[in-house]
Amino acid sequence: MEKITPHNIMLMMLSIGVLLGVARILGEIVQRFHQPAVVGELLAGVLLGPTVLGSIAPELCLFLFPQNGTNAIIFDAISTLAIVLFLMVAGIEVDLSTIWKHGKVGLKVGIISIVIPFIFGFMTAMAIPNMLGRELHVNQFTFALFLATAMSISALPVIAKTLMDMDLYRSELGMVVVSAAIFNDIVGWIVFAVVLSLMGDNPSNSGGNHIIFTIFLTLLFAGTMLTLGRWLIDKTLPFVQAYTRWPDGEISFALVLALLGAAFTEWIGIHAIFGAFLVGAAIGDSSHLREQTRVTISNFISFIFAPLFFASIGLRVNFFEHFDFLLVILVLIIACFCKLVGGVIGARWGGMALRDSWAVGFAMNSRGAMEIILGLLALEAGIINQRLFVALVIMAIITSIISGPAIRLILCPAKPWRLQDALFSKLFIRELRSLSRQDAIKEMVNVVCREFSMDQTEVECIVWEREKAMSTGIGKGVALPHARIRGLSSPLVVVGISETGIDFDSPDGKPANIIFLVLTPDSALESQLNIVSEIAKLFRNQAILQGTLKTKTFTDFLALIKSQAVSKQT
Amino acid sequence: MEKITPHNIMLMMLSIGVLLGVARILGEIVQRFHQPAVVGELLAGVLLGPTVLGSIAPELCLFLFPQNGTNAIIFDAISTLAIVLFLMVAGIEVDLSTIWKHGKVGLKVGIISIVIPFIFGFMTAMAIPNMLGRELHVNQFTFALFLATAMSISALPVIAKTLMDMDLYRSELGMVVVSAAIFNDIVGWIVFAVVLSLMGDNPSNSGGNHIIFTIFLTLLFAGTMLTLGRWLIDKTLPFVQAYTRWPDGEISFALVLALLGAAFTEWIGIHAIFGAFLVGAAIGDSSHLREQTRVTISNFISFIFAPLFFASIGLRVNFFEHFDFLLVILVLIIACFCKLVGGVIGARWGGMALRDSWAVGFAMNSRGAMEIILGLLALEAGIINQRLFVALVIMAIITSIISGPAIRLILCPAKPWRLQDALFSKLFIRELRSLSRQDAIKEMVNVVCREFSMDQTEVECIVWEREKAMSTGIGKGVALPHARIRGLSSPLVVVGISETGIDFDSPDGKPANIIFLVLTPDSALESQLNIVSEIAKLFRNQAILQGTLKTKTFTDFLALIKSQAVSKQT
Repeated sequence: MEKITPHNIMLMMLSIGVLLGVARILGEIVQRFHQPAVVGELLAGVLLGPTVLGSIAPELCLFLFPQNGTNAIIFDAISTLAIVLFLMVAGIEVDLSTIWKHGKVGLKVGIISIVIPFIFGFMTAMAIPNMLGRELHVNQFTFALFLATAMSISALPVIAKTLMDMDLYRSELGMVVVSAAIFNDIVGWIVFAVVLSLMGDNPSNSGGNHIIFTIFLTLLFAGTMLTLGRWLIDKTLPFVQAYTRWPDGEISFALVLALLGAAFTEWIGIHAIFGAFLVGAAIGDSSHLREQTRVTISNFISFIFAPLFFASIGLRVNFFEHFDFLLVILVLIIACFCKLVGGVIGARWGGMALRDSWAVGFAMNSRGAMEIILGLLALEAGIINQRLFVALVIMAIITSIISGPAIRLILCPAKPWRLQDALFSKLFIRELRSLSRQDAIKEMVNVVCREFSMDQTEVECIVWEREKAMSTGIGKGVALPHARIRGLSSPLVVVGISETGIDFDSPDGKPANIIFLVLTPDSALESQLNIVSEIAKLFRNQAILQGTLKTKTFTDFLALIKSQAVSKQT
Repeated sequence: MEKITPHNIMLMMLSIGVLLGVARILGEIVQRFHQPAVVGELLAGVLLGPTVLGSIAPELCLFLFPQNGTNAIIFDAISTLAIVLFLMVAGIEVDLSTIWKHGKVGLKVGIISIVIPFIFGFMTAMAIPNMLGRELHVNQFTFALFLATAMSISALPVIAKTLMDMDLYRSELGMVVVSAAIFNDIVGWIVFAVVLSLMGDNPSNSGGNHIIFTIFLTLLFAGTMLTLGRWLIDKTLPFVQAYTRWPDGEISFALVLALLGAAFTEWIGIHAIFGAFLVGAAIGDSSHLREQTRVTISNFISFIFAPLFFASIGLRVNFFEHFDFLLVILVLIIACFCKLVGGVIGARWGGMALRDSWAVGFAMNSRGAMEIILGLLALEAGIINQRLFVALVIMAIITSIISGPAIRLILCPAKPWRLQDALFSKLFIRELRSLSRQDAIKEMVNVVCREFSMDQTEVECIVWEREKAMSTGIGKGVALPHARIRGLSSPLVVVGISETGIDFDSPDGKPANIIFLVLTPDSALESQLNIVSEIAKLFRNQAILQGTLKTKTFTDFLALIKSQAVSKQT
């Protein structure tokens, strides 16, 4: 085999760069529509792979992402590395102690929502294996076991993300769902490891003894990692923190362990991601792991490595060619039915209200990234064919997409608005003409009423009444006139900047250089408080005011607010 | 070419895990001795590669790091990716505006410290090419041009690190050195790009037209990137910050651009790292790039990717076999002589004092990572042989190691001590027995005098005199008794914890739960102030006190102090 050539290097940089770029852009776009980023990332692969680019310009597609040769190997290796590291992050996010804290209910949901889909999936696969696309060379029992696992698994990252978006993550319902999902994931992956070992890539290895040995080693590794390994890591982390460069020592420590764990599980005959996941779970469970390390690792891996991997999935399969409508519908129905039933029964058993139980069911139903990884491994191991793989991917995406809206419909949680949601470029006045408090309010009300067709006199009157009652200058150059407006559907914040400053009767006597006019719906008291306190917190840092005065456009301003807001929180 | 097998995956995880682990451990160890981490990382490769492991257990070495086949390709690809990303970080750290600010002097040093080594290196290589290890098939002019470049280049990251360690980075001398090093790097890499294009891997490409075309494209790309590209990036960053997830959008943006830049320069016939470096420089120059992004990228890349790359260098060559003592000495003498002369003359020309000029010379002399990368590329391109490569690597390491101590000798800067440097496990008292202020001081003085054989009565007397003059309880449960002790060579901090608390007459009336006895040398007023204010700052956060009371051992305590100290600063 020859050495890696300059052409290989060029192509490697180009294909990774293009794929990552497109994946991140589409990931951002779907997030605008409150969908998980993974949907956009998969789409990037579909666009650049055989499905779309391959049918428009097959040569370009093959040039960028060759199917054979050195670059195919490199690409394969890098996307394997990416998924191994992503599973480590997924493992870190698993908080084993949560399972015990919200123990009973979570465990009940966890057990039922894995047992019902498992039995149902297994029986369906035994009953109609050919309709579900079993290939003849695959043992029916192995196939059924795989399908059962595929129906039982959840997607912790997607579930956590959906719950966080709705501010339900720290609620009791959230914790029940999260602990149930953790339980599902761990059991699901162990079962899948067994399925993989049953397949035994290499014919010489597939003797009965070998399978038992693999299962034994798998369970031994999982058990050791979650007990002794977890304890050892917890004891070692303070040494790493105390005696190595911070935070790099801790990051390397986690990565090295994950890679070695991955090598070990790959060696015993199950996939590398399994070892990385277990090591991640053991590390994430340590109370000594610092938040900064967690954030750095997950920023880098979840947003660089993960998009690369998910986009690479779309490259592997032609989604049009292998799209089988009946199979997709069948898989979707089975998956949703058994997981919803499992989730609801589990939650009811745990004593939750019916409405909450349905929310739990829909939350558990999202399969997201985990299902796709499972499907890909099964495809590579020859357990399933491309048609079923496509159906599983589509099922994973659809269950993830409907989860959020369904929970929102069921629980109608009052989503508190954030400042970012209420800022619009049309409501940004770079230089206020007014010199007095009343004029400034008038000028700002004027802009918002023109843009959103509201009654100017009424709004102005309400804001001014509030302002007269007590001045809203909070000092440090900031004023926050605000009012609740009947009939408004979402909060609106007008931003006005005045270089010279306008007297808002602040406690510190300083004129206001930046004025936020905060208009919120009549009912949304919490949103108003949220937004007002967010602004007050943000401008405690004098540098932000200075930065604001230097901004030229709304984009500059938004960039400042967003990047400063988060860097202050973490 | 076959598909990537489970064995390939296992081996990939194992070899990366082992190499990264050993590299980071040795990197940490050499840093303890105030040496740059890169020395330890290179050593890891030497230990695990043909030089050491290869001669002890050749089969294990070949199993872990095969020289041929799929895994060799994968390893090559990943270390190439690592170095490309590392050069992006090196580019980001280049601050183009610094060059202009400290313009004249920096430019003078920059020009002279590149012109003199270049001419001297070129002439030496033309005069004694064979003594320097030129291979017969290499054109003498190309060889001389390479050696000239190798002598002229600096290592910005090592220089910056050395200056920061001595608190000289923000001094005028520091800025002169940094801007000169930036100038050296940019010119050096452009010249090297030309040298590479002169080599022309592919015989069919090495016609005169092709070389001129490559040189033209190289200069065009560098020029465009540092003007138009820089401007465009600066304009685009606020949009990325405003309209994508923070900070992941910005990180991906930087990475994607660097990869595409790398692909482009590889395509025009020079190495990929060149494009990544220029893109990095253009990004790093934007005033909109946020500190958090910079820190996340460099944490991940400098401490994961870079160690992997440098360790992989040691794997490529047998350092014993190709060690040529005369050549090493010759290269070392030429390199040090011409760079020191260049640096000193440049600094004198710029009007600096003689002593400072020598410091500048030694700072510019460190070659570090950059020289090694250059050497490796030259080795791969067939410009130099393994003997010269080994000599260059050793020269790079030695010049980097001597730079810090030499500057310290010349300038004798008073290195201000930090709290971390003054903590020792022997000076950590987990539970003070004393209940009163005077007893506690006595108990703590007792420990430090026993461990460091000092006169107990004298020390106790000084500390207590100071304490009586004004109480050192600073409130929030912290007390800071301190004294300057004649004859002490470095600061010592005794830490005493009292669960019940000891009355230290604090302004807030609370008893002290944690007492720091700070003893500093008579002369080191600055160190005393530094350490005291560091402690006061740290314990402003109530959580740290709570955390301290929960620690069981010195390691736990040090881990808390280190990780909290930094996470609060960044």
